[in-house]
Amino acid sequence: MSQDRLAEKRLFDRLGIPTTRYARVDSARGLAAALRHVGLPAVLKTRRMGYDGKGQAVVRSFDDAERARLELGGNGLICEEFVPFDYEVSILGARSSRGEVAVYPLNGNVHVDGILRVTRAPFGTAALARRAVAHLRRMLEHFDYAGVLNIEFFVRGGRLLANETAPRVHNSGHWTIEGTHTSQFEQHLRAILGLPLGSTALLGPSVMVNLIGSLPAREALLAVPGAHLHDYGKTPRPGRKLGHVTVVARSVAERERAASRLLRLVEPDRRIALPAVV
Amino acid sequence: MSQDRLAEKRLFDRLGIPTTRYARVDSARGLAAALRHVGLPAVLKTRRMGYDGKGQAVVRSFDDAERARLELGGNGLICEEFVPFDYEVSILGARSSRGEVAVYPLNGNVHVDGILRVTRAPFGTAALARRAVAHLRRMLEHFDYAGVLNIEFFVRGGRLLANETAPRVHNSGHWTIEGTHTSQFEQHLRAILGLPLGSTALLGPSVMVNLIGSLPAREALLAVPGAHLHDYGKTPRPGRKLGHVTVVARSVAERERAASRLLRLVEPDRRIALPAVV
Repeated sequence: MSQDRLAEKRLFDRLGIPTTRYARVDSARGLAAALRHVGLPAVLKTRRMGYDGKGQAVVRSFDDAERARLELGGNGLICEEFVPFDYEVSILGARSSRGEVAVYPLNGNVHVDGILRVTRAPFGTAALARRAVAHLRRMLEHFDYAGVLNIEFFVRGGRLLANETAPRVHNSGHWTIEGTHTSQFEQHLRAILGLPLGSTALLGPSVMVNLIGSLPAREALLAVPGAHLHDYGKTPRPGRKLGHVTVVARSVAERERAASRLLRLVEPDRRIALPAVV
Repeated sequence: MSQDRLAEKRLFDRLGIPTTRYARVDSARGLAAALRHVGLPAVLKTRRMGYDGKGQAVVRSFDDAERARLELGGNGLICEEFVPFDYEVSILGARSSRGEVAVYPLNGNVHVDGILRVTRAPFGTAALARRAVAHLRRMLEHFDYAGVLNIEFFVRGGRLLANETAPRVHNSGHWTIEGTHTSQFEQHLRAILGLPLGSTALLGPSVMVNLIGSLPAREALLAVPGAHLHDYGKTPRPGRKLGHVTVVARSVAERERAASRLLRLVEPDRRIALPAVV
């Protein structure tokens, strides 16, 4: 389901999880019909194999869209509504093979060029988190699921719009390694082994910053109080996730200061704006 | 220094760190002199290769002691004062190759049959911790040390008496994996690599229980809220450390409840008394 963006959208519909308008695209004529349904601007995406912003294009006219369609292979595409969202969140949880469910606090995510840059948790109001958890539970139960599952949402005017789902541990949950009692990785193992799920209680407001393309000086990152550096040992390449840094703070204010400090170290040449804490 | 109990005691003396009375023993005549200096009961130990209660005997008379001396090899021994302590603590800290020092909260330790069973942190009064930290700093500076170092103390009537020191990460610091921002293992690497030392601030009152000889049912251990199970994957054998469990609690009262619950699971057949929190 989650490998085909069309099946994924239909799943959201079937489960009553609000999502963006969408239409399949397999031809120029199909594209025209899709744009009438979805509106402009729109996002044209390959149905399969897209990740980290790859295999998609924002289009602002039919000519734009037709060019993008041909570049993306002509068919096997999906056209989605372009959502000028206020911010993005994701909800991550686990269901064990015994039916026990445990959900982490709501994540606030910032993508740049289609790649996750920053996750802050907890994020959003209690009401928003409750609605996200309800959507997640519906999906977990629907599949009689065992393991960790993630759903990403756009938030616009306080409304959740599901963007995509991943039936696995997720980059937006890496902060759980230090920020909660049970990391998403341990939780996944507990879930599929039928062991009791672990506590997802927060140890402190957390921020995770991805290290993309190149690694800043270790000394500078490790001098940030409480910073946990994860170096994946991968060869640097533009746009490649090479590691991440997590800070677990004592207060939201302290976390925000840590987030700003980390971003200045990680992206010294450009300013990444963080949506205000809501 | 720490591989020879005699050199270790002399080091404590030289650094002004209070320790138990002691005397070297290499003969029957030396034993008699040692017992006059140290008093009875006493503890006779091999100077080298002793750990986890191996290579030592508590003796209550000269005949007792002479028998133990022959069993322990006759020479290369040390005779120490037997200390009827109130409880045991250890202090763990790191010094980096740049001279930075970071110390963890004081650990309260419980040994049974010479093997560490339980560590609770923080433990003891602020005044006691301050004195332990001063002793640790003196030793770190003395050696121009780089890495993690541990000193174990008996506490009697509020006085610290150094028992032994280990120039390495230590079992009584295993709780730092989850209970602080920077585990003793990461701290050791930061220290010897000359990187900034990490925060040793507590994430919550913590308890670590060793799994000795056999592993209890995983399900029961993992059902304890917040329990972190570490299974070393070793073959079970009586007296062998096979793993440990850590719980990081929100309060000392919650930690004490978790400690009792874990001990009931880990040692169902005998009651291990925990000294009261001071």
